[in-house]
Amino acid sequence: MLGNFTYVNATKLYFGENSLTFLKGELEKYGKNIQLVYGGGSIKKNGIYDKVLEILHEGGKNVFEDPGVMPNPTVEKLYEGCKIAKDNQVDLILAVGGGSVCDYAKAVSVGAWCEEDPWDKYYLRMEDVDNQIIPVGCILTMVGTGSEMNGGSVITNHESKLKIGHVFGENVFPKFSILNPTYTYTLPQYQMVAGFFDIMSHILEQYFSGEDDNTSDYIMEGLLKSLIHSSRIAVKNPKDYEARSNIMWIATWALNTLVAKGKRTDWMVHMIGQSIGAYTDATHGMTLSAVSMAYYRHICPYGMAKFARYGINVWNVNPEGKTEEEIAAEGLRCMESYMKEIGLVMNIKDLGVTEEMLDSIAKGTFIMKGGYKVLTKDEVVEILKESM
Amino acid sequence: MLGNFTYVNATKLYFGENSLTFLKGELEKYGKNIQLVYGGGSIKKNGIYDKVLEILHEGGKNVFEDPGVMPNPTVEKLYEGCKIAKDNQVDLILAVGGGSVCDYAKAVSVGAWCEEDPWDKYYLRMEDVDNQIIPVGCILTMVGTGSEMNGGSVITNHESKLKIGHVFGENVFPKFSILNPTYTYTLPQYQMVAGFFDIMSHILEQYFSGEDDNTSDYIMEGLLKSLIHSSRIAVKNPKDYEARSNIMWIATWALNTLVAKGKRTDWMVHMIGQSIGAYTDATHGMTLSAVSMAYYRHICPYGMAKFARYGINVWNVNPEGKTEEEIAAEGLRCMESYMKEIGLVMNIKDLGVTEEMLDSIAKGTFIMKGGYKVLTKDEVVEILKESM
Repeated sequence: MLGNFTYVNATKLYFGENSLTFLKGELEKYGKNIQLVYGGGSIKKNGIYDKVLEILHEGGKNVFEDPGVMPNPTVEKLYEGCKIAKDNQVDLILAVGGGSVCDYAKAVSVGAWCEEDPWDKYYLRMEDVDNQIIPVGCILTMVGTGSEMNGGSVITNHESKLKIGHVFGENVFPKFSILNPTYTYTLPQYQMVAGFFDIMSHILEQYFSGEDDNTSDYIMEGLLKSLIHSSRIAVKNPKDYEARSNIMWIATWALNTLVAKGKRTDWMVHMIGQSIGAYTDATHGMTLSAVSMAYYRHICPYGMAKFARYGINVWNVNPEGKTEEEIAAEGLRCMESYMKEIGLVMNIKDLGVTEEMLDSIAKGTFIMKGGYKVLTKDEVVEILKESM
Repeated sequence: MLGNFTYVNATKLYFGENSLTFLKGELEKYGKNIQLVYGGGSIKKNGIYDKVLEILHEGGKNVFEDPGVMPNPTVEKLYEGCKIAKDNQVDLILAVGGGSVCDYAKAVSVGAWCEEDPWDKYYLRMEDVDNQIIPVGCILTMVGTGSEMNGGSVITNHESKLKIGHVFGENVFPKFSILNPTYTYTLPQYQMVAGFFDIMSHILEQYFSGEDDNTSDYIMEGLLKSLIHSSRIAVKNPKDYEARSNIMWIATWALNTLVAKGKRTDWMVHMIGQSIGAYTDATHGMTLSAVSMAYYRHICPYGMAKFARYGINVWNVNPEGKTEEEIAAEGLRCMESYMKEIGLVMNIKDLGVTEEMLDSIAKGTFIMKGGYKVLTKDEVVEILKESM
């Protein structure tokens, strides 16, 4: 473990097929006014909306609807949500959906009582929260982002072509999250596998950084092996409870701050992917999968020992008689073939990216400095070209 | 993941060489009366006591000393601590030491305002806490028990020869724990390696149970590999910060409830070990190491697939051309040779157990039902004999 750090994560998780029954008890802790946040309405089709509304009404709550949260929540939507929260003196924001809905709920949670424009203060200037925070609770219907147990919140500004994620502190973490693996069954296959790779990318971006001997890397190897195993099962049978429940749990622990503690992290795949997302509105997980192989092959020479370890410990590459380079390359080939197998988008052309966009996407890519190689803008362009 | 469960753990961890600097900020959250709990006085020799006292005095606190907590805290000591807490209207119990000191602090925390005998209510009858709980903070000087981030509290009653652990709920978990790996440097080698095996046993007792495919098992394989790697380094160089910091972090995560969520667990090695402890007052970790090989070889046939997986994933046994039985046996041999290498006690005779004690120890062993084989009392005697 490196350096000095603080770890605290007080989000209460209710996990399992019966986890929604705990909503009643949680609601009792908050006031009457509930902002019910959700996306495009799939929760109305699969019945979750009705179940949640019934519990809210039984609890005597006033429900203020805030539907239509888009896959990449916009700054305009944020302003709308803040107005609902403020106008109705909301006591709890209840997010029902996936990572975008949870991210948006947190943005409203800090934005509603912000005296300035919350986009400027919390996303452009990344300032700490110094105003009233409205508590957030989540009912998860799609896994991937880990937003149900962290302070992350990504908002997109189409006008300025910026997609920015603020990682808020513990006071903004959801107070509780309800994780029912069966709620993820109805998600279309494309969104499901995109979510799987989002999880994988979260782990890889924390794994591929640092030269120290760190327990977190061992934990992440375990998470990766379990994810690869369970996702292969889920792709064939999306209603395999064991597989879906493991994946839901891995998603949470991959990005609830634990595995990043006391180690360096990378996040360049997310930076490139988010910039692609701002230009194409493509599904987040697919923006990551489409650039990952080019990115990892590009940085592999700078972190060779770790890539070889990855090949052996995660992909069961037999190291006998092979050089470090060969082991690393074989590991990456295994990863590529797994990605194709589960049906991920493997190039950015399929996401609607054109040659003309590449320079702008690179320009919009925020350069992080924790990876094995600090990229230049030219290298980002190169990786994007290789990903076409 | 199995079944329905709730996970919440709000203990705030301050980790690293400078972590004591955060004590000041934590103390500000509590009232003036602090019960300072510690053990045999080693913290006076290594200077930690003086540093803590200085911070307490700078914070204007009234310090009520409660020293002399023994390795297996007794019920008599518990009564003494409860009296100190009640007489002085204590606002915070600050535990400075290892697992026993933290366990004891939690026992006083729930016992002080208990209207009955806390031993009867919370240990013999294992009831839920329904009285005022005094908050606990920990400054860890020895790793192993995970007590710094859980609700566990083991108390020994010599008169009735009972050593009972109550696992209290989240309201009894320490509010904060300060984890400075350098504080563990001065621990004698015997206690250090006993702690290492206590950690290992915590992981193994949660790992060797259940036939399901569970992410927790993958996480535990990672924790085990990191522990084996770092403990080998620490035994040769106890002041290797990287190794000691990894071990400290593993100890916390091995028993802070995470890896037990959604899975079956065993705990028979602890049950036997605790009974030995009640008869011999031997170091806890050594009571576990001395019976582990006999226990695991005894239950191996009932959980063969998991033992084979353990051999491959944790001990790097090459499975090619071998039966499951051979892989499992080879894994256990690797474990045994590692245990001898780091200097663990490998038989109970060396802990002062005599043939005459065996029946009584078996009689005092609480039988848990989560492992691969529910033991009979005769089997406990058999395992004890094999451990002589």
